[in-house]
Amino acid sequence: MKYNLLMDAYELNMAETYLLEGKHKQETVFDIFFRKIPNGAGFMVMAGLEEVIKYLKELHFDEADLNYLKECGYVAEFIDYLRNFKFSGDIKAIVDGMPIFPNEPLVVIKAPLIEAQLIETALLTILNGSINHASAARQIVEVLPEGKSLLEFGARRADGLSAAFTSSYYALMAGCQGTSNVLCAKHLGISALGTMAHSFIQSYNDELEAFIAFGKHNPDNCFLLVDTYDTLRSGLPNAIKAFDYLQREGYSLKRIGIRIDSGDLAYLSKQARKMLDEAGYEKAQICLSNGLNAQTIASLSLQGACFDSLGVGDNIASPEGRVGAVYKEVALFEDGKEIPKIKVSNDLAKTINPGYKNLYRLYDNDSGYALADVMCLHEEVINKDSLLVSSVTDFEKQIILNNYVIKELHQEVFKRGELIYQEPTFKEKQDLCNKEMNLLYPEVKRVSNPHTYYVDGTEAYIEFKKEMIKDIRRKLYV
Amino acid sequence: MKYNLLMDAYELNMAETYLLEGKHKQETVFDIFFRKIPNGAGFMVMAGLEEVIKYLKELHFDEADLNYLKECGYVAEFIDYLRNFKFSGDIKAIVDGMPIFPNEPLVVIKAPLIEAQLIETALLTILNGSINHASAARQIVEVLPEGKSLLEFGARRADGLSAAFTSSYYALMAGCQGTSNVLCAKHLGISALGTMAHSFIQSYNDELEAFIAFGKHNPDNCFLLVDTYDTLRSGLPNAIKAFDYLQREGYSLKRIGIRIDSGDLAYLSKQARKMLDEAGYEKAQICLSNGLNAQTIASLSLQGACFDSLGVGDNIASPEGRVGAVYKEVALFEDGKEIPKIKVSNDLAKTINPGYKNLYRLYDNDSGYALADVMCLHEEVINKDSLLVSSVTDFEKQIILNNYVIKELHQEVFKRGELIYQEPTFKEKQDLCNKEMNLLYPEVKRVSNPHTYYVDGTEAYIEFKKEMIKDIRRKLYV
Repeated sequence: MKYNLLMDAYELNMAETYLLEGKHKQETVFDIFFRKIPNGAGFMVMAGLEEVIKYLKELHFDEADLNYLKECGYVAEFIDYLRNFKFSGDIKAIVDGMPIFPNEPLVVIKAPLIEAQLIETALLTILNGSINHASAARQIVEVLPEGKSLLEFGARRADGLSAAFTSSYYALMAGCQGTSNVLCAKHLGISALGTMAHSFIQSYNDELEAFIAFGKHNPDNCFLLVDTYDTLRSGLPNAIKAFDYLQREGYSLKRIGIRIDSGDLAYLSKQARKMLDEAGYEKAQICLSNGLNAQTIASLSLQGACFDSLGVGDNIASPEGRVGAVYKEVALFEDGKEIPKIKVSNDLAKTINPGYKNLYRLYDNDSGYALADVMCLHEEVINKDSLLVSSVTDFEKQIILNNYVIKELHQEVFKRGELIYQEPTFKEKQDLCNKEMNLLYPEVKRVSNPHTYYVDGTEAYIEFKKEMIKDIRRKLYV
Repeated sequence: MKYNLLMDAYELNMAETYLLEGKHKQETVFDIFFRKIPNGAGFMVMAGLEEVIKYLKELHFDEADLNYLKECGYVAEFIDYLRNFKFSGDIKAIVDGMPIFPNEPLVVIKAPLIEAQLIETALLTILNGSINHASAARQIVEVLPEGKSLLEFGARRADGLSAAFTSSYYALMAGCQGTSNVLCAKHLGISALGTMAHSFIQSYNDELEAFIAFGKHNPDNCFLLVDTYDTLRSGLPNAIKAFDYLQREGYSLKRIGIRIDSGDLAYLSKQARKMLDEAGYEKAQICLSNGLNAQTIASLSLQGACFDSLGVGDNIASPEGRVGAVYKEVALFEDGKEIPKIKVSNDLAKTINPGYKNLYRLYDNDSGYALADVMCLHEEVINKDSLLVSSVTDFEKQIILNNYVIKELHQEVFKRGELIYQEPTFKEKQDLCNKEMNLLYPEVKRVSNPHTYYVDGTEAYIEFKKEMIKDIRRKLYV
């Protein structure tokens, strides 16, 4: 299926009006941002820019699309415009793998009004999906004890085949060490991981027979699922018997282990560790799965659960809370002059950040940790030595920053419709994510009640925003 | 992207073992079912069978797939098997549009072990996604007051472009009267619906100018978004001025209306109705949107909110709770004889329903309402006059049914690999959904604390299930 027409009809309606009113070429700026991190986490992870690039490079309307739109009643002039459509704007963005926070512009679209409007839904749909999976995965990676690995098993709980691919892909980008998803593994040139289902055990007359059959043909990676009947009374003893048998029969087992997929994982894993060790299988690994999320994993660790890897499905493929990125106009150009735009709300947290902005991340010079993200107006020169900044959603919350290194958070992606961004490899994205996640204070990453990372504005920016709010209120209430 | 390899690696590992052990042709039965309705609703709606059929008809492995699997270490004999793969089993299923309930087999796969195992993840992924959207949409449709319509606006909140299509598609199947999704509308040969974004208003010097510009080019469907600045002080007065102006200037407005997307929708909509009526626009429609779900819609009605249509996005495209359908082996055939399979749990609700089963829906002869879904063993002849049935998850919960009409819930879809199911048109699915939803007691459909619809077993089936549980416990604990 082609996704050219994956848009909301209001975009076409607005676009047609802009064209017929001769307003379509007017340059505008839209920001994509989200207002809230779901599930009480302290950070999100950028993802989906890769697919946004692909979508924009390929976006066009073919004759079948145009015929359909004609039938819907759109006028010939607009159909002709669409026939020659090619995205011609500028895009700057925070790149895939970077930690991201509420209210900061993730993607900034500077383009003719008609173009910026037509791409709204596709960009949001791609980003909302991708960011969600990457973030859910990384939030779990961050609670893993040192040396343990997180495996992504979520394909079956994703929202259809395509989302299943994306979910695994961004889970790996964000730090999962393995996936069970064969299609995604093939795409990345790695091997997918997998053990067996309960049905495998049930398809044999008894558990031991099933284990031995599996081990014979999977000696390199012999992980046995031990909870089909009874983990400690049946599964573990049979797993140990199977390992014994296979060794005795001369199968050279490379990696062996067990997986527990139900019951009290803390208790069962400790017992399992003991039984395996006593049988001489100190190297047998333990993999735990069953509805795990950041909270339950943190709790497993506290309880001294014994495991080498964790398999997570639902909470990466379809996590409970979903991010809701929005697409808001922040400026319009008239005769080359920027007219900043704002949408106010009685709630300052829902009032957008007006204007074409730059966005910086400030890192502490000594520790390297990220201190705050700071936005300012596009033409503003940001002070390299010290800054007084205020929260963009609570002007009274101010801090003074100094002794920092400044890094621009946006990279230029499209310039006048041309892709100028050198796309990184998958490995580079993984590395970037790991590196930048390591530069967040642990307090921002902790699972319960994390520190709210600062997303602030410079003094000049906050003054500008205050003035705009005042202005618009003045206009309405006099 | 092709989805042949959208599977979990464990399926390949198990399949390879089955083949090498000569066990792959053994016939097996798997059930797909879910255990729990998310979000406290009383029913779900079947969806996704259409895509399951397409997937199974097309499933094969091409040389690129096979080369990759070879590199992963799968043996030549297995690669050869996959080269000639074609699904050859039987499938029966509840069809798209039917109301469905926990613990009943939605899809039953009777196939050689190796085939049944290889298709597990794709089937679950398709069904979990589709059922979720259809159900979320219908749950909202059911709380709509008579004569009001539900419009689906959720594309931007879906999990990527493909899921955005599916979400709109099944929302329409399940009773939404319109969608904003242009791609989906094109696919169905209908027109998508849309008004304007706040950015449209902001792109003009003032709200009235924007309204007039839009109205000039959209006289057939002139819906104005009135909450950009201030709904009652600015949006409504300007909308009325715009309607006045357009009429005065001779534009023949067909459908006019306003959309309110923020604030207290109950209060604002009542005021808006009054203002429109007083201005002589009794026919102007009111559309409300902003994070609506079944609960908030029920509450709007109770408060006397004035509206003609509601736009729902998030709660159809990515509803909070997600259904989790699973794939469980319930029988294996040995020399033509069925060996039923069970996976027990200390919690009866998590113990699967063993055996190759038939599933019936019993409708009251007088009222026509659905009384219960009843499962029995495949060879059992179900009593046409009266039945004592027990809940499959709580054996003590019994009812006696009589004066009913019996309908088989499963339709045969594949027979020995051949598609024998005559696929209905989209319209037929919509009609089926409406018809069958109307045959559910209102108590099952109410938004808070709905009656739990009966999913029961015949006496013989419950006895059989009890015996199987006893049997397996006996084996483990002696």
